[in-house]
Amino acid sequence: MADSFKQLHPLQHLAAFSPSSPSQIQPGPTPRCYPGSRQAQAEISDMETQRNPHTQLGAADLTVQLCSESLKTTSPESKAFGTVFTDHMLTIEWSEAEGWGAPRIRPFGNLSMHPACSSLHYGIQLFEGLKVYRGEDERLRLFRPMLNMKRMSKSARRVCLPAFDEVELLECIRRLVEIEQDWAFISGPSMHLYVRPTFISTEASLGVKRATRALLYVIICLAGSYFSGGSEGLSLWADPKYIRAAKGGTGDCKLGGNYGGCLAAQYEAKEFGCQQVLWLYGDDHQITEAGTMNIFLHWINEDGVEELATPPLDSLILPGVTRQSILEITRKWGEFAVSERYLTMDQLCSALEQQRVKEMFGSGTACMIRHLSQIVYKGECGRTPSDWTLLV
Amino acid sequence: MADSFKQLHPLQHLAAFSPSSPSQIQPGPTPRCYPGSRQAQAEISDMETQRNPHTQLGAADLTVQLCSESLKTTSPESKAFGTVFTDHMLTIEWSEAEGWGAPRIRPFGNLSMHPACSSLHYGIQLFEGLKVYRGEDERLRLFRPMLNMKRMSKSARRVCLPAFDEVELLECIRRLVEIEQDWAFISGPSMHLYVRPTFISTEASLGVKRATRALLYVIICLAGSYFSGGSEGLSLWADPKYIRAAKGGTGDCKLGGNYGGCLAAQYEAKEFGCQQVLWLYGDDHQITEAGTMNIFLHWINEDGVEELATPPLDSLILPGVTRQSILEITRKWGEFAVSERYLTMDQLCSALEQQRVKEMFGSGTACMIRHLSQIVYKGECGRTPSDWTLLV
Repeated sequence: MADSFKQLHPLQHLAAFSPSSPSQIQPGPTPRCYPGSRQAQAEISDMETQRNPHTQLGAADLTVQLCSESLKTTSPESKAFGTVFTDHMLTIEWSEAEGWGAPRIRPFGNLSMHPACSSLHYGIQLFEGLKVYRGEDERLRLFRPMLNMKRMSKSARRVCLPAFDEVELLECIRRLVEIEQDWAFISGPSMHLYVRPTFISTEASLGVKRATRALLYVIICLAGSYFSGGSEGLSLWADPKYIRAAKGGTGDCKLGGNYGGCLAAQYEAKEFGCQQVLWLYGDDHQITEAGTMNIFLHWINEDGVEELATPPLDSLILPGVTRQSILEITRKWGEFAVSERYLTMDQLCSALEQQRVKEMFGSGTACMIRHLSQIVYKGECGRTPSDWTLLV
Repeated sequence: MADSFKQLHPLQHLAAFSPSSPSQIQPGPTPRCYPGSRQAQAEISDMETQRNPHTQLGAADLTVQLCSESLKTTSPESKAFGTVFTDHMLTIEWSEAEGWGAPRIRPFGNLSMHPACSSLHYGIQLFEGLKVYRGEDERLRLFRPMLNMKRMSKSARRVCLPAFDEVELLECIRRLVEIEQDWAFISGPSMHLYVRPTFISTEASLGVKRATRALLYVIICLAGSYFSGGSEGLSLWADPKYIRAAKGGTGDCKLGGNYGGCLAAQYEAKEFGCQQVLWLYGDDHQITEAGTMNIFLHWINEDGVEELATPPLDSLILPGVTRQSILEITRKWGEFAVSERYLTMDQLCSALEQQRVKEMFGSGTACMIRHLSQIVYKGECGRTPSDWTLLV
C-alpha cells in the first residue's frame, strides 16, 4: 500500500475528530454501580430538544445490573472477528403505546423472542458498528460516534422503526463502554473493541406492517483483523449478475437484508479464487462497493489528473464513516484531486492497461483500510500495481 | 370483480391439486402422542434420495410434546391476520457439524436467541406461507404445499442456509397441522389456518458469513381477511422512486429483507390516500407487484386480443403459488390469451384511457385474490372499470 494511505489509519486522526466529544472515555477503575449520572445529563442538556421524560430515550433513566463474574481473559477462546463478547449489554425497549422504556445495562445474555417477531420474518432490523480505540495516551475513544448515531436514525426511518434521541443513546453506549473498558486492555494493539448497536422489531404479528414494539440493544465484541491474511491485498470477483443494491432500494442504509442478500455472491467469489465481491451496477458496470467496504481508486484519471476517487452517495452506496473521514483528510492534504464520482469497469480496465492505477483500497469500520490487489472480471484476472501481471 | 375470477378462489380447485398428496389431512380426534409414524415414512420412501439418518431432516425422528392446556377459543382476542397463534410449534435445529437434529413439536413459546445471531443482524432469514383450507367435505387440506417447500429451498440457497428434505419437512408440517386441526373449526368459513415455516440463522457471530447453525421452525396462526375493508378493491400508489426488487437482487425469494425494505413506501402510499404500493421498475416503469401480491391485468391488449397478463419470472417477481395456479387454471379455461409478459405504466394508462381494461387484481396466499380498483400515478388518480372516473 502506498505509504501515504497508511496515515489514514483512524488512530492517527482520533484527536482531530473527538477531542472533547461525549464519546471520549476516561480510563479508571471499573465502576460497580451507575444509578444514572445527573452530571452527564447536565452536560448534554443543551442538545436536547422537546424531550418528554415518559416517552423519550433518556440516559438519565439508565439502570445498571452488573454480572457477578467477568468472563474476561487475556487469551480469548477465539480471535475471529465478532465471536467473543464482553460481560454486559445495553437494552432499551420501545412500544408505540408507552414510548421508550428505561435503558438497562445488564449481564450479557440471550434474548427471549416471540417466534412471529417481524425482525425475524420481514427483516425489520438494522445495526451500526463502531470501534473503541486505545490512543497512545492510553485513553479510549469511540471514533466519530455521532456519525453512526445519525446513520442509525436514517436506517430506522427506512424500516419505519421509531426515532430516538441520538445524544442520549450515545451517552448510554459511552456508559456501557466505560463499564467494559478493561476488555480493551486484554490483548495486543491490533485487537479493538467493536460496539454493535442493533435495533429490531419485536412486533409479534405476521402482517407486513410498521412495528408497534421494538428493542434497541448494544453488544460489544473483540475485533481483531476482519479478514484473514493480515494486511495482504484482497482479491475481488466482479460479475454483474449479482447486485448489492439498486436505486430506490435500501443500499444506503445499514439494514440486515443488504448483507444476507450478498452471501451467495460472496461464496461464489470463492469458487473463482477470490475473497470478496466487487459489486457492479448498471449496464456500464459501475463500481460500487467491495465486499462490505466502500471502495477507493487512487489513479491518474482519464484527464491525466492524479485523483482519489470513490463512488458518490447516490443511494447505492453506504455512507461509510471511514469513507467520509478519508475524503475529509485527503482533501485537507491537498496533494491530489479528491472526487466522489462514477467509476466503471471500462475506465478501470483502461487505467490498469495504461498503468495509471496507483492503488485501490476498501474502507470500513470493521476492516479499516484494506488494499485490493486483484480483480477477476469477465473470466480474466487483473492485478493492481506492485504485483500486476495480467491485464483485464 | 368479474364473475369468472371469483372461480379462482383456491377452495374451488383444491381437488384438482391435492387429491392424494401427503398434505391431505384427515379430521379426527386430536391425537395425544406421535412417537414417529413408520407408515408415513414408508409411503414416501421412494421420494427420498441419499438420506443419511444422522444428518438429514427426517420426519421419522419427530418427537411431540403436547401442551397441558389449549388456548383455543371460539372468540379469539384479535381477528387481525397473523396475531393469534395455535398451541404448538415445530422446531428443527441444524448445525454444520451435526446436520439436522430431530424435529420437535412442542408447546408454542418464545425462542431464546443469542443477541449476535446473524438472522437479527444480516437478515439471514426466510419464510413461507400456506393455508389450511376446510373443504365442503369438511376435510382439511394444504394448498399445493410442495410448491412452498421448493420455493423455501430456493430461498435457503439464496442466503446460504442448508438444504433440507422437502418431503420430510412437509410430513412434519402435516403432523403439526393434524395436531392443531381443531383450530380450523373454531370460527367461520372466512377464517383459515395460516402455516408459517420460518428458517433463520442462529450463528452467534458478527462476521458476515454463511451460518454454521440455523433453526427451522413452523408456527400456525388464524388468518381472516388480510386487508381490512372486506372484498373492496384496493387503491395503489405508483411512484418509481422506490423499488421492491432489482435484477441481480433477491426479489424472487421469500427473504425477510424484501419485506422490511418495502415498509417506508407502504406508509408513504397512505399519505397519498392509497392502501398499497404498485411497484414499478426501470425507466419504462414496468409494473411488477402490488404490495406483497403478484399482479394480473385482464384487458384487451395493444393487438386487440383479450388477454390475462402478469409479469414474467425474471428475478424481479416472487414466483407465487397462487400466481402459478391462476395461470394454469385460466390456460385450461382457454377463454382468452394468458401471458407472462412485461407491462408498463404507459401501456396500462393507454388501455385505461381507451377502456380496454376489464379487471386488475392482486394474488397471494394471504390475500388470495383481491380486486385493484384505483392507482395514483404522477399525481393523477386512475380507477379501473365499474367505478372509473378519472383517466391517468
